[in-house]
Amino acid sequence: MEAELKEMLNDLDSLKQSLPDPSNHASIHKLQSRVEHLTKLAKSAPVRRTKVQDMSAEVVDSNPYSRLMALQRMGIVENYERIRDFSVAIVGIGGVGSVAAEMLTRCGIGRLLLYDYDKVELANMNRLFFRPEQVGMTKTDAASQTLSDINPDVVLESFTLNITTVQGFETFMSSLRNKSFCPNKEGSGVDLVLSCVDNYEARMAVNQACNELNQTWMESGVSEDAVSGHIQLLIPGETACFACAPPLVVASGVDERTLKREGVCAASLPTTMGVVAGLLVQNTLKFLLQFGHVSPYLGYNSLKDFFPTMEMRPNPQCSNAACLERQKECLLAKPAKDAAIRAKMEAEALLVPEGPLHDDNEWNISVVDDEELERTDATSSDALPEGLTRELPPADEFQKFSAAEPTTTTFDDIEELRKQLDALNA
Amino acid sequence: MEAELKEMLNDLDSLKQSLPDPSNHASIHKLQSRVEHLTKLAKSAPVRRTKVQDMSAEVVDSNPYSRLMALQRMGIVENYERIRDFSVAIVGIGGVGSVAAEMLTRCGIGRLLLYDYDKVELANMNRLFFRPEQVGMTKTDAASQTLSDINPDVVLESFTLNITTVQGFETFMSSLRNKSFCPNKEGSGVDLVLSCVDNYEARMAVNQACNELNQTWMESGVSEDAVSGHIQLLIPGETACFACAPPLVVASGVDERTLKREGVCAASLPTTMGVVAGLLVQNTLKFLLQFGHVSPYLGYNSLKDFFPTMEMRPNPQCSNAACLERQKECLLAKPAKDAAIRAKMEAEALLVPEGPLHDDNEWNISVVDDEELERTDATSSDALPEGLTRELPPADEFQKFSAAEPTTTTFDDIEELRKQLDALNA
Repeated sequence: MEAELKEMLNDLDSLKQSLPDPSNHASIHKLQSRVEHLTKLAKSAPVRRTKVQDMSAEVVDSNPYSRLMALQRMGIVENYERIRDFSVAIVGIGGVGSVAAEMLTRCGIGRLLLYDYDKVELANMNRLFFRPEQVGMTKTDAASQTLSDINPDVVLESFTLNITTVQGFETFMSSLRNKSFCPNKEGSGVDLVLSCVDNYEARMAVNQACNELNQTWMESGVSEDAVSGHIQLLIPGETACFACAPPLVVASGVDERTLKREGVCAASLPTTMGVVAGLLVQNTLKFLLQFGHVSPYLGYNSLKDFFPTMEMRPNPQCSNAACLERQKECLLAKPAKDAAIRAKMEAEALLVPEGPLHDDNEWNISVVDDEELERTDATSSDALPEGLTRELPPADEFQKFSAAEPTTTTFDDIEELRKQLDALNA
Repeated sequence: MEAELKEMLNDLDSLKQSLPDPSNHASIHKLQSRVEHLTKLAKSAPVRRTKVQDMSAEVVDSNPYSRLMALQRMGIVENYERIRDFSVAIVGIGGVGSVAAEMLTRCGIGRLLLYDYDKVELANMNRLFFRPEQVGMTKTDAASQTLSDINPDVVLESFTLNITTVQGFETFMSSLRNKSFCPNKEGSGVDLVLSCVDNYEARMAVNQACNELNQTWMESGVSEDAVSGHIQLLIPGETACFACAPPLVVASGVDERTLKREGVCAASLPTTMGVVAGLLVQNTLKFLLQFGHVSPYLGYNSLKDFFPTMEMRPNPQCSNAACLERQKECLLAKPAKDAAIRAKMEAEALLVPEGPLHDDNEWNISVVDDEELERTDATSSDALPEGLTRELPPADEFQKFSAAEPTTTTFDDIEELRKQLDALNA
């Protein structure tokens, strides 16, 4: 648009030159100032940030990675920058998948593969991510647009296809196998597949692909009544696959969607989907960057704020042939794996350090003898650095107070109640 | 921009009229077609959706509320549309507050009040919501822009101020008292205050305001190492206020920020902040729309996926005078409140229905005698409606399988392992 406006200014200039009558010059001046104003307006339109070569830990407002690199300083992650080497595939860019994609993009993931065949609708606006102006675009196009604006450092590959069709499944498989992003990587071309689909058939397709490729993946889901959800880690052969413990009743030979009664749609909430996406990507970061405990299964019951966990072993009678293959491989590899774990534990036992665990001790933490503590003068041991103050009186003062006027937190009769009220009024 | 371009077309037209020489008409035609092209470009720019008069439950792609109104059909919420009557104030539009604001906006909340004094920086891009093109804008302006594009039905009021200054606190208080949105509301002008700030001083200011106004609020926070957080419900006089159990060590007389060592910033993650925002707004929806259990406190330890809960009674020695006033009022109101609860429970006990609980029984659920079940032919009782199939064989077949070839899931020696492998190969 800016180029067009510049050309218009030139055109107006040559028109002015060709007009002998100066009475027309005023209207041309007016037109020129209008074009200049429009140029200013056009320039104020969104500007994208430039790519960043290396992730820096420098604490300046202009560094988009300072708060992430701080995870190293805080001792949570050993090497955050490794995130740039990882590829994550997200199947289903709906209420959970789109938010998961945005989180990974903002975390600076190396490469994202996005799969969906649906279009953005106004009916999706009750969940995070898509904007009303994107209605009618494919979800993959709309997501690529938003994500590349947010972080141009992330390599985005999007696939507008249905993985449950023969053609779609083949493209899905070959895209997971493609190793051009990280040629020396072991296994497939991606580090993790996230399933964020909303139906059984698509989950079975992801399950089939991951069992065949021996690809670790995570499954996620939200209930039709919008108030609960779950995430699950699936390692072929090691944990239950999706077919090892399938839903008890499923559609067969007909489209699942047609089974629903007309005029009835599933409920959804941005809260439940945002929480599930957050738990899913948190588990992804723990898995990729090796910190904390990677959850094998985590449920979210929002009505009770209950978060059940469990582990599921593979089913030796699983209907999926590729799963049985992976189970065999795991059983065969188990003795060697167990021996390696034993050896590592024994080696670590021999390596118990004799000196202090931390050499630097920057917070001056030391072990104090209990008896010595009792003898110490309270005021001197309570000294705080300048600029800090205690919000509560020392424990001694509390004890005195309690002894003088005992307060209880439960009461059964009106007399007890009056006592408490008097204590408050005192 | 479109209006300006239209005026330019008019200007060019009158210029053409005033020029007697037709040789100049060609250049004016060229200019006119350029303006027409620019008009087309301008029209393809984002269009905002129009306001929706009533929330409809109609299941069409163009209805932004269909998935929310479905909460009624699913029996989760009695009257979802009530959400349009509520006002929520969000203090701090950072990593948690901005996402909470977006969630409430997408849920169609009646009115949002936003408070922040900070500007958007590139260093905020590792959390959801703000976009790189908004860098330099105040967080309140950037949020109002994004939120009104997402849902023009929400009434947005933004306050670019620091609530810890004398002037800022006064404006904060008067904005909470303002009842123009819902003149007949009891109490203050808002239904809930959400504290999404990142420092002690601001939390104490919110606490002071809410204690003075007898205003229920929810507090939220994320740890400096980015891997844990919490939300908490605070009802003045009924639960502990923020001063009832303050942090043990706090800044005094100096800006909290200067206490941090130079070149060190807090870590943050879009995952943890997204989860905390999701839990906070879920608790808000449960509180406002009266469904599920409103959590008094919910922690989130992401390293272990542990979610502690607890309840905190008010501290009768609280340092906050307004809190002590509210505690007194609660104690005085308690006998009447308890009597009302007892009366309600007794009334409900008398109303236990004698007939079936659900008259319609649309899923044809009925109680079956155990003995009858055993006598029934397996195939007939297992019949499923057309289009459905079972994923697992009937229980009987499983038992036969187990009897023929017992499988165990634990093994201690290589012999046991080989047996399992053989079973898999069979």
